[in-house]
This record gives sequence, structure tokens and C-alpha cells, in this order.
Amino acid sequence: MNYSKRNRRGFLKNTAALASLAAGGAELTKAQTPGTPAKRVDELIAYGERSRYVNSIRVPVSERHSPDEFGLTFHVLTPLQDSVGIITPSSLHYTATHRGAIVPDIDPREHRLMIHGMVDRPLVFTMDELRRLPYVSRIHFIECLGNRARPMHKTVQETHGLTSCAEWTGVPLSLLLKEAGVQAEASWIVAEGAEEVKGASSIPLAKAMDDCIVCYAQNGEPIRPQQGFPLRLMVPGFEGIYQIKYLRRIKVVDRYYMTYDDYGHINPDAKVAALTHQIGPKSVITFPSGGQQLSGAGFYEISGLAWSGAAAVGGVEVSTDGGANWQKAELRSPALSMAHARFGFHWNWDGKECVLMSRCTDELGTVQPTRAEIAKYWNEPVEKVRVRGADNSVQPWRIASDGSVHNGLS
Amino acid sequence: MNYSKRNRRGFLKNTAALASLAAGGAELTKAQTPGTPAKRVDELIAYGERSRYVNSIRVPVSERHSPDEFGLTFHVLTPLQDSVGIITPSSLHYTATHRGAIVPDIDPREHRLMIHGMVDRPLVFTMDELRRLPYVSRIHFIECLGNRARPMHKTVQETHGLTSCAEWTGVPLSLLLKEAGVQAEASWIVAEGAEEVKGASSIPLAKAMDDCIVCYAQNGEPIRPQQGFPLRLMVPGFEGIYQIKYLRRIKVVDRYYMTYDDYGHINPDAKVAALTHQIGPKSVITFPSGGQQLSGAGFYEISGLAWSGAAAVGGVEVSTDGGANWQKAELRSPALSMAHARFGFHWNWDGKECVLMSRCTDELGTVQPTRAEIAKYWNEPVEKVRVRGADNSVQPWRIASDGSVHNGLS
Repeated sequence: MNYSKRNRRGFLKNTAALASLAAGGAELTKAQTPGTPAKRVDELIAYGERSRYVNSIRVPVSERHSPDEFGLTFHVLTPLQDSVGIITPSSLHYTATHRGAIVPDIDPREHRLMIHGMVDRPLVFTMDELRRLPYVSRIHFIECLGNRARPMHKTVQETHGLTSCAEWTGVPLSLLLKEAGVQAEASWIVAEGAEEVKGASSIPLAKAMDDCIVCYAQNGEPIRPQQGFPLRLMVPGFEGIYQIKYLRRIKVVDRYYMTYDDYGHINPDAKVAALTHQIGPKSVITFPSGGQQLSGAGFYEISGLAWSGAAAVGGVEVSTDGGANWQKAELRSPALSMAHARFGFHWNWDGKECVLMSRCTDELGTVQPTRAEIAKYWNEPVEKVRVRGADNSVQPWRIASDGSVHNGLS
Repeated sequence: MNYSKRNRRGFLKNTAALASLAAGGAELTKAQTPGTPAKRVDELIAYGERSRYVNSIRVPVSERHSPDEFGLTFHVLTPLQDSVGIITPSSLHYTATHRGAIVPDIDPREHRLMIHGMVDRPLVFTMDELRRLPYVSRIHFIECLGNRARPMHKTVQETHGLTSCAEWTGVPLSLLLKEAGVQAEASWIVAEGAEEVKGASSIPLAKAMDDCIVCYAQNGEPIRPQQGFPLRLMVPGFEGIYQIKYLRRIKVVDRYYMTYDDYGHINPDAKVAALTHQIGPKSVITFPSGGQQLSGAGFYEISGLAWSGAAAVGGVEVSTDGGANWQKAELRSPALSMAHARFGFHWNWDGKECVLMSRCTDELGTVQPTRAEIAKYWNEPVEKVRVRGADNSVQPWRIASDGSVHNGLS
């Protein structure tokens, strides 16, 4: 076999930072000699840890909060600038709530889920009982409605860090509702968590019977406390506030129930109301992104995430000239329904100032809009457009000629 | 809409343990009141932890080892009895090596990967250079050749705990080899890790050019130290010893190289040689499994994992009568190529002794064999059959009439 000449794409020869690497074999260094682990071996057998050289962390949305100052509102951003693939490590999954910063410390042996209201047979489940029922495992993203690019935000962690993606496992909600026997006149459910403030959301019965999951596991182990241990309602594709943590009660009802932190999901303007609930097709470039620094002209692999609350990602396009021209990116991960998908794009930077953008088209054909398109729709000037509902507009990153990367909206 | 009568499958009414649950709404307990977190909020912002009520852990293969007694051989089993879905949490991923129990403490800034031997352009890469190249993210299992059911093993962690599944991200090895320019007479590569003993494996060049990945990330963050931080070679579907950790060198050669812990991958008997390298179609029931206890007759959801080193899982069958009859199980997760797939099966236990089994058929149509079928192939009595190569035989679990679960081989 001769693989030497075929399909040599020349990534390396164009890459400034790699110019010194065509070398002999003499550069393997002493740093690769085995060292001594910092922890006792028996601890590392039980439950492994990440390397002491890895420091990627979540940060709070607002720096004005000291850790002791959080009240009912608590938003922590996932470090998307460090992300690869589509699975967010559970320790780095974003968290956002208006229902109290103190994580409920729930003993799963004492936890119960009640299903009642307009049902023939009200039911109460223990965790052990739920774990004995048929289940599904699905990879889905979650995103907070407040996850929107703002001009003053510098990094992709700040602009888009309120979304993450994980494997969720639990009992289909439809199975539990069928067991309870939903009555004919029912049309909504109200799902309530165990937080002190009794956080709750109203969800259409049609969605509840479709693909919702009463989840007890995330990424192969019990859901983490900040994600709702021991039980969380997964409402695929819907914004984060519907994914009720510490789920303790589902009431079947015949109307939308207002809840204390409802922020306008029922809007008299049908055009606006249509822009909540379900996350639109969306994408963002995670490398290069705001605050990062390119080392000079040459080859770079643009990397990013795309997702849609309605379907799988159908395709992603990238523009390297501020939206004048778009080229097809490659999907680099499985593209699963209502999950993050990873895309990549080969780019040779000429060293001149430019603007990078990505846009997602989902499998239904819906295309992520630019801010200019949103402004046109609302008939407002683009500089002043007020985006209603979930902001899924295209995020521009401006590359300065010195290689620094900036929010293109600023 | 009326969902009340449709498709009510009656899981609950047949379920002994759930008999008490058709209750009113008065049983929600005070244990759901929010408590106080044990850790400081700022620590929990940066990097979340699992609940203090969750205790699933890995255990060493052999109990005779104290933590300080490990030598070059170090095998730690993943707790499959607690597993759900297909992603193994990185902290619980199995680890197995004959190349030293001490985890190399590698500073990624100092680490290098050299590609040399029969290439036109020997190359040395830093980690930063590798991270700038095009990459893929794939969900793949890894399994140790030694992961086989033995009659004296009691639990599924002991019989099958040397396999795990994760999302792996890195640079296609084919891209690096094309950049280096593989010479026409080359036919193998030798991949070497940075352990003190210089662990290495020989891999056919055709496989290296097909789907191997030079990985720097696992489940969305840098590979954990026990999994090869900062760099691991992923050789999808091949047994664990090929997935070289702490990857520092790839030499392109024209023959198979023997390495110090090679345990017979080149065998004069072609029939035996064909049974190594690639993991055959395999499956195991994780619930109910050895050491677990059923609470009485009634409904149970049988759960398990299936995988194949050659393709995606095509289907899984379950037998509840020791292999006399087989019924189709349901796939409960995405079925990805060379990845674990999760299956489920509804089962009403009549309370009598029985034997549960699962068998996997992969998308190529290859069927996981029973031990009786293997014995027939080798013309040996089934009680004494010596399984050559990777043992992918069907695992029986015997349910005693008291609900206790036992290894069906014992």
C-alpha cells in the first residue's frame, strides 16, 4: 500500500505555528517520565479525577455577585471555549435558576413523585419504583432562554454558556401519565420542583405525551445535585425553565397555570408567543471566539456547536467575511435530535481583519437568522433591534489584524 | 384529547413492589425541604460534584491486592450493575494495564508525539499543534481482552466490568500519517506510550488509515490521567491493549513488532489468531445481575448493554428460559458504530427459578455465540470448553426462587 501522496491536504505546511515541527526524533523530553500521583491509589481506584493540569471551570453570569450574595437567582456558565465534542462533563454543565441558589439536599430514599389532578388514578412513586420501570436514554441539550449574545459580552462562555448537552436517562412521562389515566378534558400539566419557592412550569399535554422523560440519570450516573438530584423532567428542545429540577409533583390540568417566575410565556402578541418554549436553530463558533488570540496568518480549524429544539441539525454553514459568502461546514459528531452537534471548518487566515459567523439549518429546514434579518422582520434598525423571545441570532466574531478575537456585536 | 385508555400497558398493576403506590397526594415528605450544601458555593460553581447519597465506585479486579501492592498489572472494574444509558462517567471508566500502576504525571506543555519510521517526513507535534488540526468526536466502547465471564465471578462488575463507553475527540490518525507521507512498503505501525516500561502495540496500517483517532479529550474534557492524559490512541472496536495511553510515538514499519506484554496476537493457528484484535458481538444483562435481589414475582424491566467491534448493534434478543426461546429486546439508546447500546425488555417474573440471557447481533449479521456453540466449534465438552481469544459468549444469570441472582456458569 502507498498512502504517501494520496489526499495530502497540506494542513501543516500552511500553518505558521507548526513551522518548526518537521523535525527528527530527538525532541521527546524528560517531562514524559512517569511521576508520582498526588492522591492515594485507593481513592483513585474508586472514582477517578481529572489531571491537575486541567483547570477549565464554570463562572457565574455576573461578577458583581460574591459567592455568598446569591439569592434566588443563580446562573453559572459552561466554559464553551474549552469544549470539544458534544457531551458536556456533568461537573461543567451550566446551571440557571430563579428558584434559589441553595441546592436542595434530597435523600433519594425519602423523595416522592406525585401525579395527580385530572387523572383517574393519582399515583405516588418512590425512586426505587421509578427505577424499575421501562426507560430511555437520549442525548439532549438544555438551554436557558437568557442565553443570548450581548454586545458587552467578551467570551463565548459569557455569550452562550447557558447551554450544555448530556445523556439523560429515565422513564417516558407518557408511560406514567397513561398509568394514571389522563382525563379527556385535560390539556396542560404543571410540573413542580422541591425548591423552597416551589418552582413550577406549565407544559402542553401534547408535549408531555410526546418525548418528555422523568430523568434520574445524566451521563451514566445519578443526576448531579445542581441539575436536580434525584429527579428532573426533561422536555427536549424546550427552554431550560421547563426542565424541572427536584421534580416532586405533576398536576394534570385543563389550562395554563401562571407560576411565580413565569416571565411571559403567554403573550398577547402571537408573533412573540411563538418565539418562546422551543429553542430555534442556533449555532456558535467556540474557536476562535472572543478573548482568544490567533498566533498569525495560516491554517486554523474553526470549531463550533449547533443545535435546534425542533429536530436534529441538518447542516451548518460558516462565513469568514461577515456574512457575504457562506460555505458548508462539516459535522464532526453524530447529529442527534434536539442535541448539540459539533461542526468544523478548514480556514486559511490571510492575516487581515475579518468577521467569522456560523448558521445552523435544522432537519426541518428552518434556518438560524442573522440580526439583520430579525431587524427586518420587526421593522427596526439593526443597531437597535430588540430580539423577542429566545435569541437564536447569528453570533459574529471579529478577528483583528493582530489576531485578537472580539464580539462582532460590540 | 383523551390519553386515558390508549395503550395502557399495565406495568404498575403487575408490579409487586409498586402495589402501595396508587395513593392520594398526602405522602410528600419533609425530606424534600431544601437543606444546606456541604461544600462552599464558590467551589461548587467552578466544578460540580455528585450527590453525597451516590456511592457507586470502581473496584480492583483482585481483592488480594492492597492499594500499595499493585505492580505493573493494574485492573479496575467499572460498576456496570449501576450503569444506565451508554456513556460511562469518566470517573468510573474502567482501567487496565500491564504497563505499571503508577499513572504518568505528564505536563501537557512538555508532551510530544513523534511520527517516524517509514515516512517521507518525520514529524513531532506538541499538544497545542495537535489541538489546532481537524478533529472528530465519536462515541466508542473500549474493552479489555480479559473481560470474560468466569464461573467464580459473582457480579456483573466482576464478569464484565472491563468495558466502558465514552465520547472520544481527537485528530484522525490518517491525517497525521498522510502529512508524514507513509512509504509504499510500510504495512504496520507501532504505537508507544510514555509509561516507564514503554508499552507498545503493533497495529495493521490498514486499520491505522481507516478510523483510528489520536485523542486528547474524553466526554468533553481532556482525557483523565488513568485514561492516558494527555494523549491516547483510539483504535475503534479493537481490544483495549491497542488503545495506547500517554501516546508519544508512532513508528511506521513493514512487519509486526513483538512488544514486552504481547500475549499472543500472532498465533500459528489461524482460527485462534482470528479471535483477537477485534471484539466480537457481545452483550450482558446488567439488571438483574449477579448479587442483586428481586423482591418477588411481578414486573421487571430487564436492562443491559450490547456492543460489537465491527459495526453498530443491529439487534438484541433476550431469553428468560435459559436459551430455549429468544425474544426481541428494544434498543433504548442510539445504536452507534462500535459503541455500547442500551437494551431493555419487559419481563413478568412468575417467581420460579429461571435463567436470563441476552445475545447481540451486529449490523453485519454476526451473532454472539453461547458457550455451547463455542464448545461445539472447538469439539470440546461445554463444561470444559477453553474459549480462545476474546470471550464474547452469552452470559447466563440464574434467578433462584427466592429472587437472588447468581452467575449461571457456576
